[in-house]
Amino acid sequence: MKKEEQVLEQVLNKIAAPDSKIAAETSAHVDILTKPPGSLGKLEELVIRLAGITGQTRPCFDRRAVVVMAADHGVVAEGISAFPAEVTPQMVMNFLAGGAAVNVLARHARAEVICVDIGVNADLEHANLLSRNIRKGTANMAQGAAMTRDEAIRAILVGVDVVAAEVAKGTGLFVTGEMGIGNTTASAAVMSALTGVAPVAAVGRGTGLDDAGVLRKAAVISQALSVNTPDPEDALDVLCKVGGLEIAGLTGVILAAAAHRCPVVVDGFISTAAALIARKLAPLSTAYMIASHTSHENGHAALLRELDLKPMLDLDMRLGEGTGGVLSLHLIDAACLILNEMATFASAGVSDGTNQPSDSDSKVLPAQGDGSR
Amino acid sequence: MKKEEQVLEQVLNKIAAPDSKIAAETSAHVDILTKPPGSLGKLEELVIRLAGITGQTRPCFDRRAVVVMAADHGVVAEGISAFPAEVTPQMVMNFLAGGAAVNVLARHARAEVICVDIGVNADLEHANLLSRNIRKGTANMAQGAAMTRDEAIRAILVGVDVVAAEVAKGTGLFVTGEMGIGNTTASAAVMSALTGVAPVAAVGRGTGLDDAGVLRKAAVISQALSVNTPDPEDALDVLCKVGGLEIAGLTGVILAAAAHRCPVVVDGFISTAAALIARKLAPLSTAYMIASHTSHENGHAALLRELDLKPMLDLDMRLGEGTGGVLSLHLIDAACLILNEMATFASAGVSDGTNQPSDSDSKVLPAQGDGSR
Repeated sequence: MKKEEQVLEQVLNKIAAPDSKIAAETSAHVDILTKPPGSLGKLEELVIRLAGITGQTRPCFDRRAVVVMAADHGVVAEGISAFPAEVTPQMVMNFLAGGAAVNVLARHARAEVICVDIGVNADLEHANLLSRNIRKGTANMAQGAAMTRDEAIRAILVGVDVVAAEVAKGTGLFVTGEMGIGNTTASAAVMSALTGVAPVAAVGRGTGLDDAGVLRKAAVISQALSVNTPDPEDALDVLCKVGGLEIAGLTGVILAAAAHRCPVVVDGFISTAAALIARKLAPLSTAYMIASHTSHENGHAALLRELDLKPMLDLDMRLGEGTGGVLSLHLIDAACLILNEMATFASAGVSDGTNQPSDSDSKVLPAQGDGSR
Repeated sequence: MKKEEQVLEQVLNKIAAPDSKIAAETSAHVDILTKPPGSLGKLEELVIRLAGITGQTRPCFDRRAVVVMAADHGVVAEGISAFPAEVTPQMVMNFLAGGAAVNVLARHARAEVICVDIGVNADLEHANLLSRNIRKGTANMAQGAAMTRDEAIRAILVGVDVVAAEVAKGTGLFVTGEMGIGNTTASAAVMSALTGVAPVAAVGRGTGLDDAGVLRKAAVISQALSVNTPDPEDALDVLCKVGGLEIAGLTGVILAAAAHRCPVVVDGFISTAAALIARKLAPLSTAYMIASHTSHENGHAALLRELDLKPMLDLDMRLGEGTGGVLSLHLIDAACLILNEMATFASAGVSDGTNQPSDSDSKVLPAQGDGSR
């Protein structure tokens, strides 16, 4: 076994189930807060999960980062994107200048944007760019494998490295982000290969294809699948044959977050394709994934269901970059604050609906009202 | 016409359509930001609406408030709530002590909580409580009108006053919130009366009824409707016969916000029932309403569709208080920041998908990639 494969194996082996005891303790506390049981819906489920993930009864995420993996796709030669490939490096420079949507939303969410060139087809240099280019874009998957298995593993390990470095700095919460003209095509191909869903059901408009463009995109994916015959039982085979370098990098981010017991917010369609590969490599990794939003991109909702992830935002977004993910950090913070700051039935002297007023606390008011029940 | 009716009439007459010219200008700016057109989904629609509502091309809401109207309901005598009526005053004291969910989430959203006793069945006193009690809870609507038409109008004007006072202090964004054991029953009755939906389709579990409780609740509403025969063409008739004092107060909050050209975030089922009454009284008021979340309470989604409002959060919440509303303030801020801070295609030198690189700006990179398209 090669060294890189060994390193990946170590990451996979490090992923354990969340702490069910801490989760249960947190769940018990949530139930004595002044609200009808379960009435905060997904926020309650979320904070119980976060407790189990982190092993902390009062999780709190002061330092968080969105990891934006950027890469190009040889398959754009087939005319499957509304935007030209040159937009990938242009947008990377936009990220580094702080002007893209993900920058604005990350500032709003107090998250750092970590921009990684994992496979852009350009010579990019910037003080804040993490240059970890594996190759200058994938090959055209409609004519052969997008990359080698070795390259896919190395790209995964880029994500692993980025997370490890951030964890060392104190980052405890990650968001997946990406940029890569053509990457909804690669993601739909990964989805088709791993789930058996027909390409025509997996593809969407990406950055703005018309109906004919969508059909063309599906046909290109069908061709890529028949040329490469990826093995659905071998996630790395699927990833290298019809995936992308940023998808591989995000797979690494997700796996490493899980290995470090950090929650990882999965953004849109591309990120969720990476999550699907991560699950195949390490089923327990799904316990560390937080779904942010339902993207408007076709196939995303189905992918989330496949992963049993419940998105919290419904904004019809289809921008990628990690934008939906960083928007959901506010909800994660809200869930943690609820746990830390809400009064209990006893402390506030509120009847809990099962008993008489639940405490002799001084704030208990005399029973008022019609005296019903 | 009585003085109160005249005041209400003046508020209704003051409500005008949003500024379509400012909305169009803002829409044009949104389209040159570095993202595929429409890719930020509801956030784009939202900020364009906010511009039209406020008449500002760069809306910004530094000061915002959630108005929590509290009242009791005589119909609890019919056993339609999982919690006893005494919880209404207990929770009001919890709001004032800062320990309820809405307090936690409002602090997180930098919103002030304005707690109004508009009809609680208790003698409440607190320095921060707005005491505007119209009557100590409604009468039992299963046996007669919940309140008089005059009381309903006066309760609406409480909401109008609260908003006017806040606008004078510089508040530019409102959230509706409420507390009142029994108020999902009143809201479902309002929904049934105004839309013709059968009670059994309008009711939900409220704070935690079981199946038998839900059926009982529907039967009580049917009885209230047959005892009172509210006129579906007369919103005030519906409101006074089967509504509630907090529902009336929130109707006033919504109408006054619209009259002052302020957006108003409509929280859950009870708030949306108030919005339905506001629309009946002033159809243009819907242009000022922002939907926050889809509550888990049955009937809420249908009410939102009826009002053509698209919720942004999908959290399975059913707590009320304004909790979903204050959570969505973060998204409103995000939409405003996008408008203010994102780079344009020209300023960032990014190809816009229709032309060659859109500018000779110094940041333009040489075209890279496969040269496809």
